[in-house]
Parts: sequence; structure tokens; C-alpha cells
Amino acid sequence: MLMIDLITKKKLGQSLNEDELKFLTEGIANQLIPDYQITAWAMAVYFRGMNKDELVAYTKAIIATGETIDLSQINGFSVDKHSTGGVGDKTSLVFGPIAAACGLKVAKISGRGLGITGGTIDKLDTIPNFKSDLAIIDFIKIVNKVGMSIISQTTNLVPADKKLYALRDVSATVDSLPLIAASVMSKKIAMGADLILLDIKCGKGAFVQNIVMARKLARLMINIGKAFNKKIYAIISDMNKPLGQAVGNALELQEVILSLKNKGPSDLKTLVSNLVGLALLGAKEVTTLVAGINKANKMFTSEKPLEIFYQFVKNQGGDTQYLDKIDKLPTANYIIKVKAPATGYLIFTNNYALGELSVILGAGRTTKTDIIDPIAGIYLKQVHGQKVEKDSIIMELHTNKDQYFHQQFLELAFTTFQITNKKQNIKPIILEIIM
Amino acid sequence: MLMIDLITKKKLGQSLNEDELKFLTEGIANQLIPDYQITAWAMAVYFRGMNKDELVAYTKAIIATGETIDLSQINGFSVDKHSTGGVGDKTSLVFGPIAAACGLKVAKISGRGLGITGGTIDKLDTIPNFKSDLAIIDFIKIVNKVGMSIISQTTNLVPADKKLYALRDVSATVDSLPLIAASVMSKKIAMGADLILLDIKCGKGAFVQNIVMARKLARLMINIGKAFNKKIYAIISDMNKPLGQAVGNALELQEVILSLKNKGPSDLKTLVSNLVGLALLGAKEVTTLVAGINKANKMFTSEKPLEIFYQFVKNQGGDTQYLDKIDKLPTANYIIKVKAPATGYLIFTNNYALGELSVILGAGRTTKTDIIDPIAGIYLKQVHGQKVEKDSIIMELHTNKDQYFHQQFLELAFTTFQITNKKQNIKPIILEIIM
Repeated sequence: MLMIDLITKKKLGQSLNEDELKFLTEGIANQLIPDYQITAWAMAVYFRGMNKDELVAYTKAIIATGETIDLSQINGFSVDKHSTGGVGDKTSLVFGPIAAACGLKVAKISGRGLGITGGTIDKLDTIPNFKSDLAIIDFIKIVNKVGMSIISQTTNLVPADKKLYALRDVSATVDSLPLIAASVMSKKIAMGADLILLDIKCGKGAFVQNIVMARKLARLMINIGKAFNKKIYAIISDMNKPLGQAVGNALELQEVILSLKNKGPSDLKTLVSNLVGLALLGAKEVTTLVAGINKANKMFTSEKPLEIFYQFVKNQGGDTQYLDKIDKLPTANYIIKVKAPATGYLIFTNNYALGELSVILGAGRTTKTDIIDPIAGIYLKQVHGQKVEKDSIIMELHTNKDQYFHQQFLELAFTTFQITNKKQNIKPIILEIIM
Repeated sequence: MLMIDLITKKKLGQSLNEDELKFLTEGIANQLIPDYQITAWAMAVYFRGMNKDELVAYTKAIIATGETIDLSQINGFSVDKHSTGGVGDKTSLVFGPIAAACGLKVAKISGRGLGITGGTIDKLDTIPNFKSDLAIIDFIKIVNKVGMSIISQTTNLVPADKKLYALRDVSATVDSLPLIAASVMSKKIAMGADLILLDIKCGKGAFVQNIVMARKLARLMINIGKAFNKKIYAIISDMNKPLGQAVGNALELQEVILSLKNKGPSDLKTLVSNLVGLALLGAKEVTTLVAGINKANKMFTSEKPLEIFYQFVKNQGGDTQYLDKIDKLPTANYIIKVKAPATGYLIFTNNYALGELSVILGAGRTTKTDIIDPIAGIYLKQVHGQKVEKDSIIMELHTNKDQYFHQQFLELAFTTFQITNKKQNIKPIILEIIM
């Protein structure tokens, strides 16, 4: 079998069969296929797509290049949640404790952030001594003991995907729906939880920018999940503005703690309640989604979730005293205030630029080796759609970057919102639920 | 400027501007852009194409990566001819002497063969001591003295194209019309002859398989030529059967000598006469194409072209005694006869397979480093469309490969033709002339 023949087939719009996909993914994992052939194939997939059978066989072939995780030692119904990534997305850190408090077992492998998309592990890394690189046996122990655990990806899971992702990232082939779907689902299936929950971010601050594409991606992933006999639900949620008010690692962790004290932003609470509600439905703990959402909502008023979060952090080596004093931690050297230029209704118009702004303030990476400034970020003082007075503070930019750059930060900040005379219709956070 | 942004632009169907194309081609030539980004871009070009301005700017940018040749020291009207490649294509070696005998100056840089496409330099290499790697100054001297010279590509001409071609070859991006057009035309324009003649092969034994695609390619190349103020004509010629009767390096050289003695196959003669006719028209030596063709046809009966060919070989160090005894040279160890299974009309139905057969007999390369067997090849004893008797010999397979393989050779040979009861309409060798 020759890789060039497989590229040609895909280029001409034909499907690769199981043997060919095995050859391809093994060749990628074992570095037997040169990078320049892999990227040419990936670009052909961008244009030609994959049909349903091919996508399932391809996902299977990726999984077969690495280990799979056996979660059968988990006592209870295990849930894995995945977000396609957005600005200010700290959902997993609130979802975990609320779901666990409702009796579910949250077993999650997370990544680090790249570009405008934050990563759960980066947020947890702001807690001194927190360890994310646990062995699977310890991971399962913590899930059983605490109700939740979040670790970073071990090297032996889906190695073909890991290698391919790095190449897609530098060859402009990230935004191919089948490649995204297979990349996510291969990890989720190798992980083996009882339920997979997908949070597909849709809008200017996500790579899926419209609802049609979001539905298509949801459908691809659900199809793969079902082909592997997995229970899988998807939420499509709005990403035309940041989720919550905080963007940046330590700032977001503050917001997580606030949320677990039921003082957090309402959009984040709604999203988490819906996700937990779906999980409870999947676990047959409730018979309707509404009952599940209600149960989750009630749990926000309990002290249990925050306790679980503390236990989770403690069991993974983290310093919980840091969580105690999280409101009083030293801030960044500079907090630049962005003020409303007029009185009117605030609309965030460019969430992508807000994400970029957070990155250049120091909160994100542009390449994988960049070092993150944990306390850099953006704090939104006003909510999307809300009436604001002239000169009131719209957002704070937290940064340790030299004053020389501050004018540039301000200019970029002013491109991210508008003040309008007319009250605007604001999209709900949950756009669709696909089961 | 980042290569990933240029890949993205092309992927989305946008055109790259002059600065971007310069960045791209210099990055390719100087190996500053990694191969995996170059192939992803090439695949995006396969799907998105290039518009007219982009293609011209891209060709210009390729040329700018290397040297250009100054042919102003040539006394007379210089002609450069290019074939897109086919099975048994020895046209240049007949065209050169006939055109030179008509008073034109033929200055040509040729390549080696790859796959089913033979290369002019490989055919010349069968002549002992023939040198194709001449300095430009010596090349021009021979053109002035003899009327023709053919050399292999010097390393300093269009380095970006050289590097890119090698990558396209292994990434299934060879068959992109704009990339083909720019690759050919960059070399022709860097060469700087007064007239560029294109022979676009069309049919099963060429990569351009239908007339629509051939016209499109011709139009792209002519557009580029005209943007550089070049005189340029194109012939689209049939490649559904081999050109002439010989396929393989030494066998084809025999056919060239026969043709220059006016005893060669008629399709080759017709093609050469048309090409020379066009060249004479371009040089304003004649006022109509028909007059040019007539002049070329007459020249086949003169001894001058063969004399010129001898002088050309001699001046490039080749052994002309080899040419004297070319009919009596040792043949391959095996000459396998393929006989007609029935009486009827002979139709070659799969010229691609004939090309492949010649390669596995030893006459061609499947990778650039393969070594060619100069005396291997195919000799067609019967002409396309002709009536043949049962058991008459249709073709001879010349090979030094072990007898173990001969059955396989025969089986492949029998897939390349059919014997039909009804006389078929045979396409003329010249399908179209585009000026």
C-alpha cells in the first residue's frame, strides 16, 4: 500500500477502506509516513470530507494506535464532558463538582489552551502543587473517592491523533469537521465513560461560527459515538461573547469558586445546569431533562459542590489554602480600565478579538511552547446586552506587559464591543440540545 | 508573513498577492518553509485553482528564485519546444534537426523520464559519451554552429520549481493545471527563446486525458506566455496510442534515425511537420501555416536533417559511430512476441498500460533513482486501426528481465489492445492547434 495512492483516492472524493485507514493511522503514529504526505491528505479531507462509514472506521483506526482506558472500576455512572473550546470557558470546573454532588462520577481528561481557546489544565495549574499527570489507577481512585477527577492526556492515548493534530495546527487543516469529530471522539471512546457530553461552542469566539456547522459537527460526533454503542448527548452553546465575566486562568478560577458559592454569572450556571441535567437523564437518575436541570440548579445552593472541588484539588496535590484566599491574591501589575464611550446598550461584537486580546495580555499561548501568565486576563464588568452609562467601566485588562503596549491593548479592546441606542435581542446561552 | 495564513487564504479560495507569492516561492527555494506546509498549500491549489493574475505573478515569482538565460547571442530565430509527456514521445529529436535544417535555431532544455513518460535526455544518454550537462555558453555556441542543442536542466534555473515538483510528485498534487502551467512556463520564460512551442499530449497515455482539460491547460500556458510578451503556440496531439512504433530509449533513437531518413512512422512525421510549420510561421519565414508544413515536409526528403543530428551529437561529445550501426546493435536478451488472438482491426485501448508495460520491461523509472535499461522497450509491429491476421505479431517486448516475469508481461500486453470486427474511426494525431 502506498500513501500517495491513498492521498489520490481522497483527492478524487473516494472513501478509504478499513485496511487503508489502518495503514494511514499506524503510519502516522509510528512516523512511517512523511509529514508532507499527511498534510496533503488532511487538506484533501478538508475539501472532500469523509462519509459516515469512513469516519467511523477512521476513528476506530486512530483508537487502535494507542491504549484504551478501562473505567469499569469506577463505582457508579461515569460521565465525560468535552467542549470544543471558547473564550472564558471554565465550564468543566463547575460542571464536575455539581455533577459529582448529584451522585455522578466525572472522569475527564483535559488539554491545555492554544490560541483564543483556554484549557482546563492551565486553569488548574494556577493552583500551587496541583498535579494533572496522574496514573490512571490513581485517577480512578480519586473519581471513586471524590466523585470527580481531571487529568491531562497521557502519552499513550490515541498517539496518531496527537501527531496529526500537531501537523493540522501548522498546515491550516484544523477546521475540517470530520477530522475534528474523529479527533475528539477517538479520545472520548478510548476513555470509555458511560456517557459522553459534548458542548459545541458556536459563534465568533469559537471555530464553529454558525449553527449549521455546529449541527453538522454535533451530528458527526453523535454518529461516531453511536457506532461505538456509546450514550452521547450534545449541547450547542453561544460563543458570541465570553462565557461568564472572567477570561484568563486565575481570574477564571476565581469565577469558578464564586459559581460554586452560587454567586457566579448566570450564563455559566445555566450551561452547567443543562449539562448536569443531561447527565442525570443519561444516568436514569431522572426521567425528564427538566427534572435533571432542576436538580442541578438546586445543587448550586448546597455547600457540597465546593467541598467536592476542594477534595478534588487536595487529592491531586493542590494547595487548598490558595482557594481560600483566591479573592485576595496579588493582582497583575497593571489593571487597565476600558470605559464606555457613550450611554447605551452594550453589545460584544467580536468575541474572537476579545480572545486574542486575552492572549496578548499574557493569558494564552500563540505557540505550544509559550509560557502563560496566570494572572493576566480580562474581567468584564458589564454584561452583554445590558444598559451602560457613559464612562462606566466595561472591562478591566489585567496584564504584566510593559506600559508601552497598553495603548495597543486599549485600541483592540474598543474593537470588541459597541454601544447601541436600541436594546438588542440577546441569544440565550443554550442554542440547541441534540440527543 | 506566515505560511499558514497563505495556506488558509488559498484554502478559502482567495488569491495570493505578489508579495505573498514571492514569500512563498523564496521560502520554497531557500527551504525556509517546511515541506508539510508546501504540500498542504499545493493540495489547496489543486482544489481552488489560481486566477489569471495570480498565476502570472506566481510564475514570475518562481522565475525570480533562480537565474535566467540570455539567448541574445544566438544568431537567428530561437525556438524552444515542450511536450507535456507521453508514451513513445521522441518528437524533440526529430523536430530539432528538421527545424534547424529549415534555418531555425532550436535551443532546448530537457528532462529525464518518470513513470510512463519518457525523457529526451534518457534517449540521448543511450549514445556513448553524449554530454547533456553543458555550460550555457557552450550550449549557445552549438546552437549557433549546428542549428540545435539539447541540454539537461542546470541547477540554477527555477530552483523553487525543482523543489516544489519533487514534493508534488510524492503528495498527489502533480495534476493541478495551474501548477503544471506555471512549472512549464517558468522554465520556458527563464530560458528566453523567441518562440515557445507547446505539444500538449491528450489521451490515455498522458496525464491530460480529455480535450477539455487539454484546452484549459493550453489556455493557461498561453496566457502566462502572453503576460510575459512571449510568442507562444500550442498543439494538442493524440496520446491514446504511443507516438510512432517504438517505446524505450534505444528503440526510440532507432526510430528517430529512421524518421530523419524519411522512413519513420507517419504520425510522428505529421506532428513534427506541424510543429516546424508553426515555428516557421512564428519566425515569419512563411506567411501561412500550410506553407510552413509543406516546407517541413519537403525537408524530410533532404539529407540535411540527419547531418545536423550527427553534428549535434558530435558537438555534445557523443559517439556518431553508434548512430551508424544503430540498426545492428545487440538487442535485449529476450524479445517476447505478442500475437493477434484473432483476425480483425487492431485498436490500442489502454496506452497508459502500454506505458506501464514499457516501465516494467526496464525502459522507465518508477522512482527518480531507478536505473533505466536502455535497450528495453516495446516495438509495435502493427499500426493502430490497421487490419491484422490471426497470429500475426502485434508487438515485440524487449527485456532483460528474468523469464519468471514474462507471463506477467504478456498478460499486461493483452490488456492494451483489442481486435474488433468493424473498422474503427481513428483520431488524427493533431487534435487542435491553438495560437
